[in-house]
Amino acid sequence: MKNFSLTGTYTDLYQLSMAQVYFLKGKSNDHAVFDYFFRKIPFDGGYTVFAGLNDLLETLQELEFTSDDLEYLKGIGFNEQFVSHLKTFRFRGTVYAMSEGEIVFPNEPILQVHGSILEAQIVETLLLNILNFQSLIATKAARMRAVAGDRILSDFGLRRAHGLGAYHATRAAIVGGFNSTSNVKAAHDFGIPAVGTMAHSFVQSYDDELAAFRDFSEVRPDHCVLLVDTYDTLKSGIPHAITVAKELEQRGHKLSGVRLDSGDLAYLSKQTREMLDNAGLHYVKITASNQLDEYVIKSLLDQQAPIDVFGVGTSLVTAPPDAALDGVYKLAFAYGKPRLKLSENLKKITLPDKKQVYRIINGAGNFLGADVITLQHESHQTIMHHPFEFDKSLNLKELEQRALFNKVMENGRALHEPNTLQGIAEYCQAQFKLLPDEFKRFQNPHIYKVGISEKLRDERNQLRNHYKK
Amino acid sequence: MKNFSLTGTYTDLYQLSMAQVYFLKGKSNDHAVFDYFFRKIPFDGGYTVFAGLNDLLETLQELEFTSDDLEYLKGIGFNEQFVSHLKTFRFRGTVYAMSEGEIVFPNEPILQVHGSILEAQIVETLLLNILNFQSLIATKAARMRAVAGDRILSDFGLRRAHGLGAYHATRAAIVGGFNSTSNVKAAHDFGIPAVGTMAHSFVQSYDDELAAFRDFSEVRPDHCVLLVDTYDTLKSGIPHAITVAKELEQRGHKLSGVRLDSGDLAYLSKQTREMLDNAGLHYVKITASNQLDEYVIKSLLDQQAPIDVFGVGTSLVTAPPDAALDGVYKLAFAYGKPRLKLSENLKKITLPDKKQVYRIINGAGNFLGADVITLQHESHQTIMHHPFEFDKSLNLKELEQRALFNKVMENGRALHEPNTLQGIAEYCQAQFKLLPDEFKRFQNPHIYKVGISEKLRDERNQLRNHYKK
Repeated sequence: MKNFSLTGTYTDLYQLSMAQVYFLKGKSNDHAVFDYFFRKIPFDGGYTVFAGLNDLLETLQELEFTSDDLEYLKGIGFNEQFVSHLKTFRFRGTVYAMSEGEIVFPNEPILQVHGSILEAQIVETLLLNILNFQSLIATKAARMRAVAGDRILSDFGLRRAHGLGAYHATRAAIVGGFNSTSNVKAAHDFGIPAVGTMAHSFVQSYDDELAAFRDFSEVRPDHCVLLVDTYDTLKSGIPHAITVAKELEQRGHKLSGVRLDSGDLAYLSKQTREMLDNAGLHYVKITASNQLDEYVIKSLLDQQAPIDVFGVGTSLVTAPPDAALDGVYKLAFAYGKPRLKLSENLKKITLPDKKQVYRIINGAGNFLGADVITLQHESHQTIMHHPFEFDKSLNLKELEQRALFNKVMENGRALHEPNTLQGIAEYCQAQFKLLPDEFKRFQNPHIYKVGISEKLRDERNQLRNHYKK
Repeated sequence: MKNFSLTGTYTDLYQLSMAQVYFLKGKSNDHAVFDYFFRKIPFDGGYTVFAGLNDLLETLQELEFTSDDLEYLKGIGFNEQFVSHLKTFRFRGTVYAMSEGEIVFPNEPILQVHGSILEAQIVETLLLNILNFQSLIATKAARMRAVAGDRILSDFGLRRAHGLGAYHATRAAIVGGFNSTSNVKAAHDFGIPAVGTMAHSFVQSYDDELAAFRDFSEVRPDHCVLLVDTYDTLKSGIPHAITVAKELEQRGHKLSGVRLDSGDLAYLSKQTREMLDNAGLHYVKITASNQLDEYVIKSLLDQQAPIDVFGVGTSLVTAPPDAALDGVYKLAFAYGKPRLKLSENLKKITLPDKKQVYRIINGAGNFLGADVITLQHESHQTIMHHPFEFDKSLNLKELEQRALFNKVMENGRALHEPNTLQGIAEYCQAQFKLLPDEFKRFQNPHIYKVGISEKLRDERNQLRNHYKK
């Protein structure tokens, strides 16, 4: 597998089966609206970071069925007229969405697709594939950033990522607050700093560690991070690194850092810092890696481990224990009418119609802790209390209410130059600062309230009563 | 992101940094051997399925640095001579490996790369990326196959998979025992049956469910699975499906099935089966989906749920709670000498030198429950008891000992036509049948023993003593 093209068949078969029915029944041009939202915050956390929008819009702009796709579809029984129709298929819909990097919460629409029911249906799977994954990883990254302060966070995950998913995992990590990556291709394509140290195998391939360090430092004397735990970190690795650092100094260079990749990172980093400082090497940075996640990083820093750079692999790019964001794409409007999916309990009922989401900002300019979903063109006057209660003493009408949805695509064309990855990451961090601390706790975080307006509630209830009959 | 090419920069930066040192120090052509192995079986299970070999070999055969890659590397500071060298880089190594689909266990080498230290180092990351992920998903799939008996297992995971990782997740699912997929692109490229039903949105887009079912069944009357839980499964969905099935019968067709996607699947499938049977529709199959995993499938079948097809998404393609196989790639030989990585405890020590792995087969032709790692050309005469004890009453020398390593690539060319995906899946199932049941339990499975020969033990101990000095 050397080349992978994201074409029209990057979808579930049933999307094409349904599209075929719409086409053959003459319904394919009818207007439909789908909501993208999720139901549960991953990691039992208090927030989710929305990521993947740029990639989605780019994919939608370029999406088409290749002749190879079309031959295949014919071969597995699709109708010839329908397949001919797919030959000219382009996504011509309109997309409203929150900004990439926005802090988002369960049950609120994050993105709406308005288009023909045929095109809106066909793109469901790739939309979910892109947004669910990147939002998951950006959220994991943001949790690490939240505890890492201004220390460097580097993605080391390519070897443990889910195959080609590694590529966008790196992008999403940057959205969530990571600084750099070991993944050269992703670094290149997304304009991210590429970083790396050395592997144990390099040290092992020499008969002694000092010789390995010397050779390595000679080639790029100003970009050298030495891995010090191949044999014995404190007895061998650090003393050898100090020797090499001194030799570099004599030649006018500075050792960039050392990397600890095993053992107790709190203990070893303190000992390492002391040994480096005693040798006058205050500028040599300490990188730590080995099974890090947000909890380990927090614990290390709680214990004042003097670590400057965290290299995070598996946990960042695979996002255990959840490993998936449960984002869904639900029909809200079709054939001129708002639509609803019922369910046995209120929890899984969907919200009909075209909508807007408002974020309430408190007097200090921070998030109050409540978003309100309204109909698209409603000026929302009152706040409904579903499914949570607000503090009645607050006069919500007097607080700033920021509309979160923007029209980002029209007739299949993106309306704006895409924000840069760096710009998205900065936006995310700026928004994250506005989120009160109680939503950032790892244990039992405060629950952000998402309410719906009275008009939207009434419309939903009417529809529900209609279907219940 | 429309096209993705797997080129030489699909690697960690440090591989290229190390390769550069080897090159500039004139060491790049020295012979090296790396072992691929993992340390922990995912999901606290008793076995792992080895997958991804064909993709790895294909990638190694085609791997090269594009001019774009080379420009980038120059731009971030790589030496010009080294970059010129990469221009002509092709992988020319030799690969020994177990068969794809083999049942494998911790700490035994599954694959060995023999080549120049430069090429063997550069391919580390992509090798780990491919093999770790596909083996993880094949293992998850095998766990579901182990409890599903001869029922159909279908991959519905594209929307929740890790971005482009979805593609090989589907392939790996087939290796582990799945039958089909909803992912059209993967189905096409890998020759897997593409399957699908319909979504709630299709039913919602009509004013009534029966009309939706009728339209859907009309277009492909012999390939129609109706989703019956949009409003009320037993009061509305199934009665409407029965109506449509009867109408199809009158036109000479048969309804393929119904799909349950919410509620208690055991209860609903029993009620559904009864209603279908009472209507004379014994041939209509029941598909179930919604948050399935190996435990839920087992529980449903333990309760005699009459489900014919399981559609599995998130849990299959993201493999929680582990979400990663911890496979590593460790130097075993370089510059004419066997190599070792020490560690604070014996657990993480590596095994030096070129090796072979033997599987011991008991008198009945099944796996005894023990593999032995030897030096490559050693006829292993005695079994070492590290780290586990064997039953001393067994005369291991009289039992069949099957060598698991084959030479699969030489001088960068695959030596055999790749096995088909179907062939690999059949091999996996055949091997799985030879694995005794006690290793297949979900709770506290029996631990498969992996020992090393006396000669290998002695060589490792000598090396360890050497490095400890």
